Amino acid sequence: MKQSLGAKTIAVPTPVWLIGTYDEEDKPNLMTAAWGGICCSRPPCVQVSLRAATYSHGNIKRRKAFTVNIPSDEHWREADYIGIVSGRDNDKIADAGFTVSKSLLVDAPMVEECGLVIECRLKETIELGLHTMFVGEIMDVKADEAVLSGDKLDIKKLQPIIFNPGDSGYFKVGEKISDAFKQRIPP
Amino acid sequence: MKQSLGAKTIAVPTPVWLIGTYDEEDKPNLMTAAWGGICCSRPPCVQVSLRAATYSHGNIKRRKAFTVNIPSDEHWREADYIGIVSGRDNDKIADAGFTVSKSLLVDAPMVEECGLVIECRLKETIELGLHTMFVGEIMDVKADEAVLSGDKLDIKKLQPIIFNPGDSGYFKVGEKISDAFKQRIPP
Repeated sequence: MKQSLGAKTIAVPTPVWLIGTYDEEDKPNLMTAAWGGICCSRPPCVQVSLRAATYSHGNIKRRKAFTVNIPSDEHWREADYIGIVSGRDNDKIADAGFTVSKSLLVDAPMVEECGLVIECRLKETIELGLHTMFVGEIMDVKADEAVLSGDKLDIKKLQPIIFNPGDSGYFKVGEKISDAFKQRIPP
Repeated sequence: MKQSLGAKTIAVPTPVWLIGTYDEEDKPNLMTAAWGGICCSRPPCVQVSLRAATYSHGNIKRRKAFTVNIPSDEHWREADYIGIVSGRDNDKIADAGFTVSKSLLVDAPMVEECGLVIECRLKETIELGLHTMFVGEIMDVKADEAVLSGDKLDIKKLQPIIFNPGDSGYFKVGEKISDAFKQRIPP
């Protein structure tokens, strides 16, 4: 018999992604988002959902672009800090010790210290309530060689952070279970 | 210097969720989805993105409801199987050894063997291309006592599966890094 936890945003895994944007004066900003996920294969799309109160929200509306930068667990303090402080009044990118450069494909900054960066052009804006969902079309994914095995993303090398909204905890990625798409008969 | 991986759906973590629906004749169906994520806090919402070719797609359009059932890593073979076979021609729920019961809150079935179930009423349907994004308003989250510590979801007890689209691998959740929202000064 299951018990009710209420109508809450409890689902796992959720990501810890740094969303990169430029403001009106070309100042780069980052914010940390856990409300996001892939949402289409063709065209390839990813959604991130932000509150209208965030500085990044206005930046995406104006510049029609963002990056998804995936920090490793070594940078959990930086990611946590960037999720707490507003870029409106702080230079939190420098404070976090991060370096950004302009994406050549989209009008948004990329974080050098993140092993994987997804460059997105804004495709859809959907008002859901407290959060606005921004659907970005993925124009390219860029990776450090250090997070690849051959030409494929190695999640154990990237070591992204897993967030559990149920207890506000950050977790590591553990051991590999299996390759997918193998079980063609009932288990 | 980062290298280009192309315009692909490479982002981590992505979930392995079983989406529960009823068809026109009240036959329950499950499909496995990795394209999904939370997308609003108030009202609480979660998105799952499915191809129009799937049986579940028509079910959600008609019944305006779905559940998100989170299997543990012990059930990775069942989740993988359910992601490969169509419910149009198979009784894959029985084949996987799963038991479903009707949600009291929404018009969709819940999987007994999944430690966490999210009951959703369809709120928005957004056509993105190959995939349709279904945004569900979360009406309740139901959990087995075995996946809770106190009244909070314990991700180490639930042990959800992490999917890496970059190499089509399933992974476990590893050790806890920290509680979130702690780093109020630059790290």
